[in-house]
Amino acid sequence: MNDFLPSQAGDLITAAVLVIGDEILSGRTKDKNIGYIAEYLTAIGIDLREVRVVPDIEEEIIAALDALRHKFTYVFTTGGIGPTHDDITADCVAKAFGVQLVEDPRAMSLLLERIKPEDMNEARRRMARIPVGGELVLNSVSKAPGFMIGNVIVMAGVPAVMQAMLEDVAPKLRTGVRMSSANIDATGFKEGDYAAGLGAIQKRHPGIVIGSYPSLTADGVFRNQIVVRARDLEAIEAAAAEVRAMLASLKV
Amino acid sequence: MNDFLPSQAGDLITAAVLVIGDEILSGRTKDKNIGYIAEYLTAIGIDLREVRVVPDIEEEIIAALDALRHKFTYVFTTGGIGPTHDDITADCVAKAFGVQLVEDPRAMSLLLERIKPEDMNEARRRMARIPVGGELVLNSVSKAPGFMIGNVIVMAGVPAVMQAMLEDVAPKLRTGVRMSSANIDATGFKEGDYAAGLGAIQKRHPGIVIGSYPSLTADGVFRNQIVVRARDLEAIEAAAAEVRAMLASLKV
Repeated sequence: MNDFLPSQAGDLITAAVLVIGDEILSGRTKDKNIGYIAEYLTAIGIDLREVRVVPDIEEEIIAALDALRHKFTYVFTTGGIGPTHDDITADCVAKAFGVQLVEDPRAMSLLLERIKPEDMNEARRRMARIPVGGELVLNSVSKAPGFMIGNVIVMAGVPAVMQAMLEDVAPKLRTGVRMSSANIDATGFKEGDYAAGLGAIQKRHPGIVIGSYPSLTADGVFRNQIVVRARDLEAIEAAAAEVRAMLASLKV
Repeated sequence: MNDFLPSQAGDLITAAVLVIGDEILSGRTKDKNIGYIAEYLTAIGIDLREVRVVPDIEEEIIAALDALRHKFTYVFTTGGIGPTHDDITADCVAKAFGVQLVEDPRAMSLLLERIKPEDMNEARRRMARIPVGGELVLNSVSKAPGFMIGNVIVMAGVPAVMQAMLEDVAPKLRTGVRMSSANIDATGFKEGDYAAGLGAIQKRHPGIVIGSYPSLTADGVFRNQIVVRARDLEAIEAAAAEVRAMLASLKV
């Protein structure tokens, strides 16, 4: 399947998440998958670079798939793989890859572990359709599998099921050097006070990424966190030490 | 500013959300704005059609802005408008529109409501920079304003601040006929049992959108909800009645 993988410089492995579902865009369902996948991929050495949420509309799904799969090492989709008429993700992925979508005997056996043969019907059979060339992604929660074709990994939208699928597919993925980070609590300091010093440190360390993240407590106080990110732990520590020293100098 | 608005068929007002921030993609911060904005826009008659999350990288932000602002009535951005070096949203929006980013006296007055004159510095002044032609979006929580230029609305990433800005800008936006919905609890039924019947109802009502949304309870039981969406309440009720009758027929 590596024929589909875009070439990568060095060990940099990138990914996008494509959330498919009208229910997220209407606000009816609050997505819980983006944050979970982001944290999971970061932990295994895959850089999440982009997320898109699109409605259950074939042209929109295919356009997003094509934009993302040619740009990143992997694309993870969530949603749209159930038995109802609004579940069109597998159809769209097959069309994007220009392959047939066919009933897969392995997928059918998995479905039959949960569904009684007398309950099998046309709608449920839809869940056994896999694009030709795809590999199954197992689902320990409710059996109906996802799949991986080329660099696209197709997963369920229900968080517990998606998480089980991610667990199954992750060991098969290429991973790079993990992006590590140091977190420096800057609560009590104001962003506007340390912004110049922080910007100067970022300039001296172009190879690392320094971010400043304010959040607001329930009583209206800003709690600022400074995060230093890189793949090299020594580089992180050097920059973090400068950040701490810079903050300490502001206390005078 | 209507010069910037793409022409729309009828009363259909659409939007995209562009979340700007490395911290969302790394998983460090879990986004809370997408779901809030989705629900808010649906309630006021604006259809959210796409969401993207991109990193703090100028080319990525501008590319996403340009893709979205030419496709939808409005684009709402969140994140990247603070005083630190990683806050580059205003710069990117100005570049996308091909206009200068200049210190705005009204924005500066607002900042000075919260910042003592002796604490004003170059970093804080950055928050008063507004692209030429932009209108301020007020922030009742922490004063530093967002802005609207053309069809792009630039808001903070901190949820409480973003929510205050949305409250300020919403009355100025064009809105369409609100998309309404009926929710039919299908818990106790299996999706695979009602999928065929539901698909047939969808076919008979091409003007409405019918979705089936499974979720999983803590004890592993699927709770299915069927949602019927349209702008016409009578059309919703007609389809919802058919869905209820179809479910009842399965009970036999």
